[in-house]
Amino acid sequence: MNKYILTISCPDATGLVASVSGFLRDNACFIDESFQYGDPATSRFFMRAVFTPSAASPASEVLQGRFAAIAAPFQMTWDIVPADKRPRVLVAVSKIGHCLHDLLHRWQAGQMPIDVAGVFSNHEDMRSIVEWHGIPFHHLPINAATKDVQESIWLKLVDELRIDLVVLARYMQVLSPRTAKKLSGRCINIHHSFLPSFMGAKPYQQAYTRGVKIIGATAHYVTDGLDEGPIIEQAVERVDHTHSVADMIAVGRDLENVVLSRAVRYHAEKRVLLNGQKTVVFR
Amino acid sequence: MNKYILTISCPDATGLVASVSGFLRDNACFIDESFQYGDPATSRFFMRAVFTPSAASPASEVLQGRFAAIAAPFQMTWDIVPADKRPRVLVAVSKIGHCLHDLLHRWQAGQMPIDVAGVFSNHEDMRSIVEWHGIPFHHLPINAATKDVQESIWLKLVDELRIDLVVLARYMQVLSPRTAKKLSGRCINIHHSFLPSFMGAKPYQQAYTRGVKIIGATAHYVTDGLDEGPIIEQAVERVDHTHSVADMIAVGRDLENVVLSRAVRYHAEKRVLLNGQKTVVFR
Amino acid sequence: MNKYILTISCPDATGLVASVSGFLRDNACFIDESFQYGDPATSRFFMRAVFTPSAASPASEVLQGRFAAIAAPFQMTWDIVPADKRPRVLVAVSKIGHCLHDLLHRWQAGQMPIDVAGVFSNHEDMRSIVEWHGIPFHHLPINAATKDVQESIWLKLVDELRIDLVVLARYMQVLSPRTAKKLSGRCINIHHSFLPSFMGAKPYQQAYTRGVKIIGATAHYVTDGLDEGPIIEQAVERVDHTHSVADMIAVGRDLENVVLSRAVRYHAEKRVLLNGQKTVVFR
Amino acid sequence: MNKYILTISCPDATGLVASVSGFLRDNACFIDESFQYGDPATSRFFMRAVFTPSAASPASEVLQGRFAAIAAPFQMTWDIVPADKRPRVLVAVSKIGHCLHDLLHRWQAGQMPIDVAGVFSNHEDMRSIVEWHGIPFHHLPINAATKDVQESIWLKLVDELRIDLVVLARYMQVLSPRTAKKLSGRCINIHHSFLPSFMGAKPYQQAYTRGVKIIGATAHYVTDGLDEGPIIEQAVERVDHTHSVADMIAVGRDLENVVLSRAVRYHAEKRVLLNGQKTVVFR
Repeated sequence: MNKYILTISCPDATGLVASVSGFLRDNACFIDESFQYGDPATSRFFMRAVFTPSAASPASEVLQGRFAAIAAPFQMTWDIVPADKRPRVLVAVSKIGHCLHDLLHRWQAGQMPIDVAGVFSNHEDMRSIVEWHGIPFHHLPINAATKDVQESIWLKLVDELRIDLVVLARYMQVLSPRTAKKLSGRCINIHHSFLPSFMGAKPYQQAYTRGVKIIGATAHYVTDGLDEGPIIEQAVERVDHTHSVADMIAVGRDLENVVLSRAVRYHAEKRVLLNGQKTVVFR
Repeated sequence: MNKYILTISCPDATGLVASVSGFLRDNACFIDESFQYGDPATSRFFMRAVFTPSAASPASEVLQGRFAAIAAPFQMTWDIVPADKRPRVLVAVSKIGHCLHDLLHRWQAGQMPIDVAGVFSNHEDMRSIVEWHGIPFHHLPINAATKDVQESIWLKLVDELRIDLVVLARYMQVLSPRTAKKLSGRCINIHHSFLPSFMGAKPYQQAYTRGVKIIGATAHYVTDGLDEGPIIEQAVERVDHTHSVADMIAVGRDLENVVLSRAVRYHAEKRVLLNGQKTVVFR
Repeated sequence: MNKYILTISCPDATGLVASVSGFLRDNACFIDESFQYGDPATSRFFMRAVFTPSAASPASEVLQGRFAAIAAPFQMTWDIVPADKRPRVLVAVSKIGHCLHDLLHRWQAGQMPIDVAGVFSNHEDMRSIVEWHGIPFHHLPINAATKDVQESIWLKLVDELRIDLVVLARYMQVLSPRTAKKLSGRCINIHHSFLPSFMGAKPYQQAYTRGVKIIGATAHYVTDGLDEGPIIEQAVERVDHTHSVADMIAVGRDLENVVLSRAVRYHAEKRVLLNGQKTVVFR
Repeated sequence: MNKYILTISCPDATGLVASVSGFLRDNACFIDESFQYGDPATSRFFMRAVFTPSAASPASEVLQGRFAAIAAPFQMTWDIVPADKRPRVLVAVSKIGHCLHDLLHRWQAGQMPIDVAGVFSNHEDMRSIVEWHGIPFHHLPINAATKDVQESIWLKLVDELRIDLVVLARYMQVLSPRTAKKLSGRCINIHHSFLPSFMGAKPYQQAYTRGVKIIGATAHYVTDGLDEGPIIEQAVERVDHTHSVADMIAVGRDLENVVLSRAVRYHAEKRVLLNGQKTVVFR
C-alpha cells in the first residue's frame, strides 16, 4: 500500500501543523489519517499522521532528509516508517498461558501487525503451543541467584534478534531496574488489576479482600517502579459478592487478553507516544 | 478567552490541512485543538479546530473574509464561531421530566454551554420546575386535529427566539415530515432504546418481550423517518431476567439523561458533523 | 400491596432455608422474591426474601414472634419490615450540588423509596433547591474548631427526626471517628474515584496525574478509616489523554449520581447486608 | 467434590421452596448455592441449587426417586445431575476460527466444563488446530443441493457421540427448521450483532451503514426463526466514525469470544432455564 506513518513529539508552537502538512503537500503526499494533541499542562505537542506518497513524491530517504530540516527548528523527536513495517517482538511468559495464546492466535489470524521472533519462559509449559506456531521457544529458568544471568541471556536475544518490543504476557517476574531502564518505552507488561489499585502480587486476591464491585486489567510500559509505568490501556468488568478469587481470575483472563492485545497493537501501529509518566494514545 | 471554533466539511484532497493550518499560522493564530477525519468510503473530509488569535491577528471579520478565499477552491462548507457563543435552545417535553430536569440542572450548574430560551410542552406538569429556573414555559396542547397548528406555533417561537437547536427531551410526539425537514440538523431527539433495535413506541416493553440482556438509549438528529436520523450518541446498561418493564424504565432514565446531555453538549460545542446519514463526532 | 421484606444474616448451616421457607409456607405466605448467599470464606449465610401474607396468615406481630423462635437456634440477625416502609433520610451536602439534585429529583419523581426528612450543609448554596422541594434546610457551618459542635448538632437532628440513613452527597467533610462509629451501617458516602484507587482529596486530580484510562465512583458505608468502608456500588467510564481534570470532573458527575442513587436505593430496599468489611448486595 | 446441581421449572406456588429445601434438609444435604426466580408475568417458578450430600444422605438414585415424589404435585420439570458431569459438545465452524480457537483454549486450560467430542466444518481450514488439540475433525462440505444430506450426517454424529450440546462457533450456515427444532434448547449460536439489531447476513456492514456508536454480539439458542431464539448473553463495545467495517469486525471478535464462551459455560453449568422465548440465567 506504500503508506507511511509519521510521529512527532515536541514543544508546542504556532505553525507546527502548518509546517508538517505543508511539507506533505509540497512533497505530493496525501494525508490518510492525522491525529494531533497539544497538552496544555506540559505545552508538549504530539502528532501521528498516516500518509501516502504519489508518483510525484520523492524517494523515502529524500523525504526523510527534507523532513529533518522541518523538524530541527521545532526540536521535534520524530519518526517516519513504512506503515507495513512490523515490529519484531519477543514474548515472555510463565506458566499462565492465556495471554500468550491469545496473542499468537491473533498474530496467526493476521490481526496483530507484529513479527513474533521468539518466546522465552522460566518454565517449559508453553513450549508445545509456541513450537506448533513455528516460533522458537527459549527455556530460561530463573531464581534469585540466577536472575542477573537469566536477564543477560534474553537481553542478548533482544540484540541478536533485533527485537523492537518485549511483551511480558503474564511473565510473573519483576525485571531488574537496569533491565527495565534498558527497555524503556519498548517493554509492555500486563498487570492483572485496575491500576493503581492492587499493585504487586496477587491482585485478584487483594480485590476480593477489599470487596470491590468491578475488577480490571492494565497494560503499561515497564519502568523500574513496580506497576508504575505509563498506562497504555485498561478495561474493567463487573463482579459481585458471589465471585470467589477463582471466579475473578476467570473473568480477568478475558480482560487481560483484550487489554494486552490492544496495547501491543497500538504500540505496533505507533499510536502510543510518551508524555512524561503518561501516554498519548491516538486510537 | 477569545478562542474560535472552525469546522469544515468538504471533498477530501491533498493539501487541505496544509491550506487550513497555513492560513492559521499566517494569521498568527495558535491551534489549541484539532481533529480531522477523511472518510475513505465517501471521500469526504471533516475537520474541527479550536484556535486562539494573537495580538498580531486581524479582526474576526477580516479572518472570516480571508478564510473564504481558502475555502472556495476546496468547496468547503465551513464555519468560524467564537468558542464562547452558546446556541439558543428550545426544549420540548411531555409528562416525563427526567431529561428536562437533568438538562436544566447541568445548565444551571454551568456545565451545559447552551442558552435555554424556552420550554414547551403538551402538558402542564413541568411548568413549575421550568419557571423556578426562570425560563419561559409554553403550554401547547396537541391532538391529531391540532397537530399542524401546534407545530406552527412553536416553529414561530423557533424563529422569534432565534433558536439554534430544538431538543426533544422525551417529547413523545412524532414531528410532521415538514417540520422534521425544516429543523434538519438542528433538532435532537432522545430515543429510549439502543437503535436500530426497538424503534417506535414502548421500546422498553419491546426489549422486555424480546428478553435482551442489555438495554440502551440513543440521541439522534430528527429526520422524517421515525427514529432513523443520524445517531449522535448511545449508551447501554446490563439487565437480566429479574428486570420488569418498570425496572428497565428506571435503568433507562439514567442512560437517557447521560446520552441526551452528551449529544446536546457535543452539538453545542460544534463537535458533530453530518456525513450523509451518519455523524462524525469529534469528542 | 401488603408485602414484607425479610433479611437474615447468620452462620451457615444445613436446614436454614428449609426452616425459613417452611415457616413462610406454614404461615400461608407467598415468596415473591428470594435471594440467598452462603459465603464459603466466612461460612456466613445471607438471605433477603420478599413475601406476601394471605388471608390465612397471622398478623404481623404474631408473624414476628413466631419467626423469633425459628431464628434463635440459628443465631440469626434478622428483620421483617413492611416492603413499603421508607427509611427516613438526612442528606449532607457542601457546595457541589449534583448528587443532591439528582437524589431529590428521583425522590420527587417517585423513583427513590425514601423519605427525605432534611438536608444540612456547611454552606448556604443549596438552600433554594432544597426548600423548593419542601424540605427543611439546615445551615451548619463547620471549621476545625467547631467540628465537634457541628457534628453534635446534626447528630441531634438524626435522633429527633428519627433518621434511618445519613447520605453524604458530596459533603466534603471527614466525619470524626466517634460519629462514623455511631452511624455504622447507616451512613453512605459517595467517593469520586474507583476505590481503592485515589483515596482522600482531589481524586480526579490524582487520576489525571497517574494517566489512567478509566475513572470511576464508589458508594460505601462510612467507617472511621477514610474511604475504607464496605463498598456498596461502583461504576466507571472511559477517559483518554485529551481529558483535563475539569473534563474528568464532568464525566464523574454522572457516575457519582448513578452510583450514589443506586446505593441509597439498594439500602432503602434492604438489599445490602454487611459481611465483615465487604457487602452482599442482592440486586 | 460430590456436589449435585438441581434445576426446577414449574408453575409458581406457595410452599415450593419449603418443599425443595425441606427435602434437602431431610436427606442431610447442604445447600452450597441457590437461586430462584418467580416470573410475575408468566407465574412460572425457576430454581437452581447446588448441594452436597453428607454421609447420612442416601445414594443418588434413591435421592432422585424421593425427589420425584416432591416434584409431581408441583408439576415440576426438574433435573438432578452431578456437578462435575460435563456436557458432550459438538462444535460447528466455518472458515472464521476465533471463536473455535477461544473455546478450545479455555477447554484445554481447564476453564470450560465441557467435553469436546468433535468439530465439524464445511471447510478444511480449522483441521490443523482441532487435531493439535486431539479432537476428531469432520469435514462436511455443504451447498444448497446437499444441505439436507450434510445435516443428516452430523445429526447422526450427534446421536452416535451422545452429544448434549451443539455450538455454532461462527458456522455461517442457517440450520433447516427441522434440525433447529430437533436441537431445541441444546444448540447455541453466536450472532455477531447486538440482537435484535442487524439480524441476518453481514451485521457489521449493517452496523457501519447505520452509523451506530456501539456494536455487540449475542449468544442465543437456535430456533427456526433466524436469529430470533432465546438470548443467553450479550456484550457490547464502543465504536466511532473512524471504525471501518474491518475495524468493527476486529472489535467484534473479542465480544464474540467472550459472549459465546460465557453462554456455553452457563449452559454447561445448568445456569440457563428457558422461559418461553426468553431465558432465566442464574449467573
